[in-house]
Amino acid sequence: MRYENGKVKDLKIAYIGGGSRGWAWGFMKDLAGDDEMEGSVALYDIDREAAEHNAIIGGKISAHPDAKARWNYTVAATLQEALTGADFVVISILPGTFDEMESDVHAPEAYGIYQSVGDTVGPGGFIRAMRTIPMYVEFAEGIRDYCPDAWVINYTNPMTLCVRTLYKVFPGVKAFGCCHEVFGTQKLLAAIAEKELGLENVRRQEVKVNVKGINHFTWFDKVTCRGIDLFPVYRRFAEENYAEGYEFGDNNWMNSTFASMNRVKFDLFLRYGAIAAAGDRHLAEFMPGKLYLQSPEAVRGWKFGLTTVAWRKNELQERLARSRRLCSGEEPISIEPDGEEGHLLMKALLGLHDMVSNVNIPNHGAIANLPWDAVVEVNALFSRQGVQPVVAGPLPGNILPLVARHVYNQENALQAALTCDKTLALTTFMDDPQIDLNWHDGEELFTTMMRNTANYLPKEWGMK
Amino acid sequence: MRYENGKVKDLKIAYIGGGSRGWAWGFMKDLAGDDEMEGSVALYDIDREAAEHNAIIGGKISAHPDAKARWNYTVAATLQEALTGADFVVISILPGTFDEMESDVHAPEAYGIYQSVGDTVGPGGFIRAMRTIPMYVEFAEGIRDYCPDAWVINYTNPMTLCVRTLYKVFPGVKAFGCCHEVFGTQKLLAAIAEKELGLENVRRQEVKVNVKGINHFTWFDKVTCRGIDLFPVYRRFAEENYAEGYEFGDNNWMNSTFASMNRVKFDLFLRYGAIAAAGDRHLAEFMPGKLYLQSPEAVRGWKFGLTTVAWRKNELQERLARSRRLCSGEEPISIEPDGEEGHLLMKALLGLHDMVSNVNIPNHGAIANLPWDAVVEVNALFSRQGVQPVVAGPLPGNILPLVARHVYNQENALQAALTCDKTLALTTFMDDPQIDLNWHDGEELFTTMMRNTANYLPKEWGMK
Amino acid sequence: MRYENGKVKDLKIAYIGGGSRGWAWGFMKDLAGDDEMEGSVALYDIDREAAEHNAIIGGKISAHPDAKARWNYTVAATLQEALTGADFVVISILPGTFDEMESDVHAPEAYGIYQSVGDTVGPGGFIRAMRTIPMYVEFAEGIRDYCPDAWVINYTNPMTLCVRTLYKVFPGVKAFGCCHEVFGTQKLLAAIAEKELGLENVRRQEVKVNVKGINHFTWFDKVTCRGIDLFPVYRRFAEENYAEGYEFGDNNWMNSTFASMNRVKFDLFLRYGAIAAAGDRHLAEFMPGKLYLQSPEAVRGWKFGLTTVAWRKNELQERLARSRRLCSGEEPISIEPDGEEGHLLMKALLGLHDMVSNVNIPNHGAIANLPWDAVVEVNALFSRQGVQPVVAGPLPGNILPLVARHVYNQENALQAALTCDKTLALTTFMDDPQIDLNWHDGEELFTTMMRNTANYLPKEWGMK
Amino acid sequence: MRYENGKVKDLKIAYIGGGSRGWAWGFMKDLAGDDEMEGSVALYDIDREAAEHNAIIGGKISAHPDAKARWNYTVAATLQEALTGADFVVISILPGTFDEMESDVHAPEAYGIYQSVGDTVGPGGFIRAMRTIPMYVEFAEGIRDYCPDAWVINYTNPMTLCVRTLYKVFPGVKAFGCCHEVFGTQKLLAAIAEKELGLENVRRQEVKVNVKGINHFTWFDKVTCRGIDLFPVYRRFAEENYAEGYEFGDNNWMNSTFASMNRVKFDLFLRYGAIAAAGDRHLAEFMPGKLYLQSPEAVRGWKFGLTTVAWRKNELQERLARSRRLCSGEEPISIEPDGEEGHLLMKALLGLHDMVSNVNIPNHGAIANLPWDAVVEVNALFSRQGVQPVVAGPLPGNILPLVARHVYNQENALQAALTCDKTLALTTFMDDPQIDLNWHDGEELFTTMMRNTANYLPKEWGMK
Repeated sequence: MRYENGKVKDLKIAYIGGGSRGWAWGFMKDLAGDDEMEGSVALYDIDREAAEHNAIIGGKISAHPDAKARWNYTVAATLQEALTGADFVVISILPGTFDEMESDVHAPEAYGIYQSVGDTVGPGGFIRAMRTIPMYVEFAEGIRDYCPDAWVINYTNPMTLCVRTLYKVFPGVKAFGCCHEVFGTQKLLAAIAEKELGLENVRRQEVKVNVKGINHFTWFDKVTCRGIDLFPVYRRFAEENYAEGYEFGDNNWMNSTFASMNRVKFDLFLRYGAIAAAGDRHLAEFMPGKLYLQSPEAVRGWKFGLTTVAWRKNELQERLARSRRLCSGEEPISIEPDGEEGHLLMKALLGLHDMVSNVNIPNHGAIANLPWDAVVEVNALFSRQGVQPVVAGPLPGNILPLVARHVYNQENALQAALTCDKTLALTTFMDDPQIDLNWHDGEELFTTMMRNTANYLPKEWGMK
Repeated sequence: MRYENGKVKDLKIAYIGGGSRGWAWGFMKDLAGDDEMEGSVALYDIDREAAEHNAIIGGKISAHPDAKARWNYTVAATLQEALTGADFVVISILPGTFDEMESDVHAPEAYGIYQSVGDTVGPGGFIRAMRTIPMYVEFAEGIRDYCPDAWVINYTNPMTLCVRTLYKVFPGVKAFGCCHEVFGTQKLLAAIAEKELGLENVRRQEVKVNVKGINHFTWFDKVTCRGIDLFPVYRRFAEENYAEGYEFGDNNWMNSTFASMNRVKFDLFLRYGAIAAAGDRHLAEFMPGKLYLQSPEAVRGWKFGLTTVAWRKNELQERLARSRRLCSGEEPISIEPDGEEGHLLMKALLGLHDMVSNVNIPNHGAIANLPWDAVVEVNALFSRQGVQPVVAGPLPGNILPLVARHVYNQENALQAALTCDKTLALTTFMDDPQIDLNWHDGEELFTTMMRNTANYLPKEWGMK
Repeated sequence: MRYENGKVKDLKIAYIGGGSRGWAWGFMKDLAGDDEMEGSVALYDIDREAAEHNAIIGGKISAHPDAKARWNYTVAATLQEALTGADFVVISILPGTFDEMESDVHAPEAYGIYQSVGDTVGPGGFIRAMRTIPMYVEFAEGIRDYCPDAWVINYTNPMTLCVRTLYKVFPGVKAFGCCHEVFGTQKLLAAIAEKELGLENVRRQEVKVNVKGINHFTWFDKVTCRGIDLFPVYRRFAEENYAEGYEFGDNNWMNSTFASMNRVKFDLFLRYGAIAAAGDRHLAEFMPGKLYLQSPEAVRGWKFGLTTVAWRKNELQERLARSRRLCSGEEPISIEPDGEEGHLLMKALLGLHDMVSNVNIPNHGAIANLPWDAVVEVNALFSRQGVQPVVAGPLPGNILPLVARHVYNQENALQAALTCDKTLALTTFMDDPQIDLNWHDGEELFTTMMRNTANYLPKEWGMK
Repeated sequence: MRYENGKVKDLKIAYIGGGSRGWAWGFMKDLAGDDEMEGSVALYDIDREAAEHNAIIGGKISAHPDAKARWNYTVAATLQEALTGADFVVISILPGTFDEMESDVHAPEAYGIYQSVGDTVGPGGFIRAMRTIPMYVEFAEGIRDYCPDAWVINYTNPMTLCVRTLYKVFPGVKAFGCCHEVFGTQKLLAAIAEKELGLENVRRQEVKVNVKGINHFTWFDKVTCRGIDLFPVYRRFAEENYAEGYEFGDNNWMNSTFASMNRVKFDLFLRYGAIAAAGDRHLAEFMPGKLYLQSPEAVRGWKFGLTTVAWRKNELQERLARSRRLCSGEEPISIEPDGEEGHLLMKALLGLHDMVSNVNIPNHGAIANLPWDAVVEVNALFSRQGVQPVVAGPLPGNILPLVARHVYNQENALQAALTCDKTLALTTFMDDPQIDLNWHDGEELFTTMMRNTANYLPKEWGMK
């Protein structure tokens, strides 16, 4: 990597999970659309064929007549090959397959536990962590050995535990995690500001927020837009729209598993006094199961969707088909940007343009009443100096127990995964607020789910 | 108060709740049985007649031919009168009546929530705190104004919040809380040491423990007896006796609401690796309701008792009758000691004999991973220098979330009580692990219970 | 204050020390040169005439044909009048007169103690603090009573103690302190970057720094410019220029009491491995007296100047004369900007343009190994959300004792000033690294200096 | 080691520095005089002959007709042999010879720096640390490898750094350091209590103190005796005796290098408000050199002695002669106890008798405003549970900078010694309050002293 006339040349990016159908294409377009960086991307994926397809697609994107920068896409045969010499490492993988995820999300339903996503906390998130953490141990060791100075950007869930594992295994790692859930809440606030205050064309970035919490369970305790304090505006809006919900975006929540009517968000605000800043599907999972996820009927009442794995499997087929079409040229390449920030954060870290955005990163003072080293989500200043979180301030007393509970559980989950400690894993599993079972049922569910993911667990668990 | 030949004369004790039938008499006997202190006790009680009866009984105890010290018992008309000039303040009250307690304990049963004690955490403990905290605000202000240098010993539940309130209102207070639950576990361990190791006549005090946690949810992570590490002994014993339980003491658990078969204690040990050190009835209440308190049948399976308020009311009648008999002389006075430590702690604080015992006191370094100022239960050195907690060390990672959750809730409960904040009170109530309800049911129960205790709530709550 | 088309109207600024000749004029010009804010400035000064002159000058600046914004300048008769309704409070005063400062700076010379500035630490800084803190107590009380929501910007030295006093007296204050010393080091680094790397037109703001420390004793542990790490460049430069020094700026150090040859800065870097980021005159005063201030000869060897108060008095005469000329119109008004950032920080806080700059503010996590409430200097994000320090990270182990010593002394100085505690004041005075005296000489010097400033001390000191 | 009828048999003690003439003999007598422990002591010393002599002397002491316990004394050929199987490790060595110590203490005199002991802080203490730390690295590794569960008691100076090194190298070590300086101040207070209050036969242990600080610079902020607060008594006494000093003990300070008139102690009390609790010779060395150690004349004025190494060398000859006499039987063995507590602490750790005493141990909450892991001196409860410091509370604000400065320097000294970092070593050396030199003189002195101890430094220093 080198600087040339205020631009960066020969940048080397290692992309772990480089066979991704979807997120990868957006990233490739973002790179193509930016004339300040050029270089190469080494795609690494355990599904090598997928990486090869993406190398083809990446090449087409880079060769697009409207592309402002040329990027070279290669396939790396091994993790070592991908990482060696990398300036940036992007990690965006699916840990296991949708079969494992099917168990994560749906096995608990037999015990009356309904999950809306199942990849972060709750029984699904926990089991997913058990199989993901060993993968991240391997990534961390690889980064330590082959590119210790590289910046590492994680997009995989469970976000918090992925980032925490990297730091636990290689404390010198320069890693952080990015998630767009906060953006969604900013967009909602922008829409409310327009609607309530008559403002026009409010961009997401104009909604300034103080972010604090953990991934998918972040909170805003200050929000302003064009100098105006949005808290009283939001309060009024939440009160008025609480009962019916507020449909935001172009998808009706009844048709989409991602949309919602924001009733959970409004409910949390009216009860806790701060703005919960993630999709309702995520937020609901951090709270006790009885509150928002008591039953499919209750979920319908709260007007958000349960994302089934059947839906995911189906949607994957569509993406696979599209991958084939893009490779073959059947579908033309377009390079409109996708609104993710990954490439902008890279540019900031390269010293091209400082920026402030939310990030998942170890807590070294940003939130004084959460433990040192816990991975938290806060705003940070991105610059050539690195990622410097702003001091977000302590969590309010009423929100602290909600968040801290997960922080402690996540640390115990990490410990259990690293040591294959079944006793610790079970008690941690049982402490999740979604799990409201007696010991007998809890152990039964735990064992079932662990067995269902046993292909991805270290043999020390003795789960096969 | 003055020192004379290594003894203390003219000691002044203020006894708030001095009309107590039961604990007060034991305390009076302890004072009478100790020849190193003499002085007077000012009994203050909102039931003045009860205090007057106790003054009579105290006088009889002090006049007993076997008494080693003379104490003068008076009735104080006001809190101010009781406190003025006091060297020690003992607080042991019943906050409200058994009618309020009946609601605390039994109202939640309509929602499937069964409580074994209902005075510490859970819905009952929370509501009890709401009416007790304002009383402790008054006590704290009185101590600040009339005897700021006095030592204050609290025996009332909810212990943690009573002590916390005193410090919150008057940060200079020299207060701590005493509870005998830890003693019970020491006695159990002594019995196990005798049974398993063939030791003889093991006194409770010989079972050395490292205490950490919060009142009624304390844990031992080290236990020795006569130089021997009891952990492996206890582990073996717990494994062997887990299924059937171990009957300890002279009461069969089926006949007594206080006895238990220690199955909860064994279960917690086998799952968490440290010794939970309180009666099973208390321990069960700190854990999620489904684990040990799912239903009366489940409780019977775990082999401990639910303490009904009907039982308490009945037992009070017996104590009232005994009070009358003692006053009238119908029942003779005996002065055998009762095994409580209150008077010994007083002597230690007066510089007569240093001692180490467990105590409830603000956390100023004793447990590094609990918040500063939280009231914790740890061992402390009692001496003329004051009460100095020993550094108990951090809570183990797996136990931390169990305890911290209550610590946070207690702080929020205090805040809610001091500000009569219904929203905060409800969300705190809902965060209790015993309460597994949806918002609708939770609010309904909360409102019912608050109304039932409204006689003792500040009018700002608007609950009447 | 109100928002109108993305601009701010009717902003109210209270200017304490509004009679300032110099800094005030620059501020007025900055206001006039910016078209995004308009409003009024209430000038308050104990020298009312000076404030009146400045109101005239302010009026002329605002009426200048090139002015982009109209500001109304008034004179406030009282502190209360100035503060009432203020959106911003600017404090920039001279505590006492140059006669007091003469004692601060020169009285210690009789004891072999030479000070280069004498307004921050050392004997001069300490005594100055003793008379300044009571003034800031009054300011803090006024702000609390008349404009508790206003932003308060302090420019007065001793910076750290001024800001600390505001927070100590009124914990809710929204205050911070601004200082341009860091800018000077950025400019030096820009010059070095141009010289050594062949870069062109490097603006100060392009030199990105991680700031940590306390005012006038700040350190950079990361510096980049246009993506390039300047640390190795600076190391080479410091090694090469250490012996002779490097003349930076247009003033030869021998002619100017403000210029220096940066030998102290280079020396500190080579010994401590981080870039000390203030003028050499300031830096030298934080280190033991023998190192850089042993004697006038030694100072000449280190090639920086001792700022005499005679020089200051003389320079004041020039500024007074200029004030008269500006008032009378004898000297025409020009409105070129002066490079200070005050008005830009205001705009950021009003939500107009976020920015990052260094600031003096309570440490609430920004520097993990300095005390919680200590006022530190770090970068902060300025926005409508307020001033959020970035997590600067702990001070390096070798620099920690140098900085922490002053932090502790400053806290003790505050305590001594608030309580007029002579014993504490003396021991704090004696702990300053510049003061290398035995108790006898130390007490003598302390008493002399306190008497010399007695006009500005509370009578409780008994110094008159 | 095993328990038998409430006693301990087969205890294994490793004694590093087992050739000691003096302290070892007292320890042997203490063991002989106690009937609750028996076992063997493996003496290890780089001076093997000295260890052999001590084995003979130990055998004689154990065989004394009045001995209550039989101990077997052997000589270990290697550190590994000594440590293997040890239950306790005692470390009491002279790091280097008196020739190195001669440089430590006296070389700085050429620069006007006079040291009263020279083994803890100051130039002598620093250089001594540089050669001692590598030895303790070896001890720590040996303990980790051969007896990781053993209790380790250190008596060597610099105490703080010896204990800190053990924990740094082997974080699992169960080590603590013992020092009798606190006892001396307790004895002084006992004498004052007798003199001023007419008490009789006050034993040292009856003077209850709250200990806080670091070794040789400990402070009492509470002192009571038989229930009486000694602070006002001590204040009056210090005021009355400040000018002339108070001769305590049987040695006139003019004849003894260990006695003093306590003027430093009184002076520190009157200035800082807490009781400095070590000999004046030690206390003086922690303060800036000008205060108590400005010159030999000044020291005479403060009425304490400078301990010359010539005196030490001479006194060693006497001890060597005595060793020969004891070995040969020329001098009869007596077994009166010597008042040290080592064997009592061992018994407490074995569970025989709990006790509270002062100890040097990592700070894990005992002193909230000193860094975690810093080795501090506080009271601790010794029991079979281990060494549990009591929460001593924060250092008072005025004393904090005095102590913290040394804490930071000690950590930097450790770092410098472990990495042989000359730059860090020099700046740390220069930050010592006794060293008031310019850079030139400081570097010269540092280099001279390091060269003088080069025989004991790792070759990485390049000092030979």
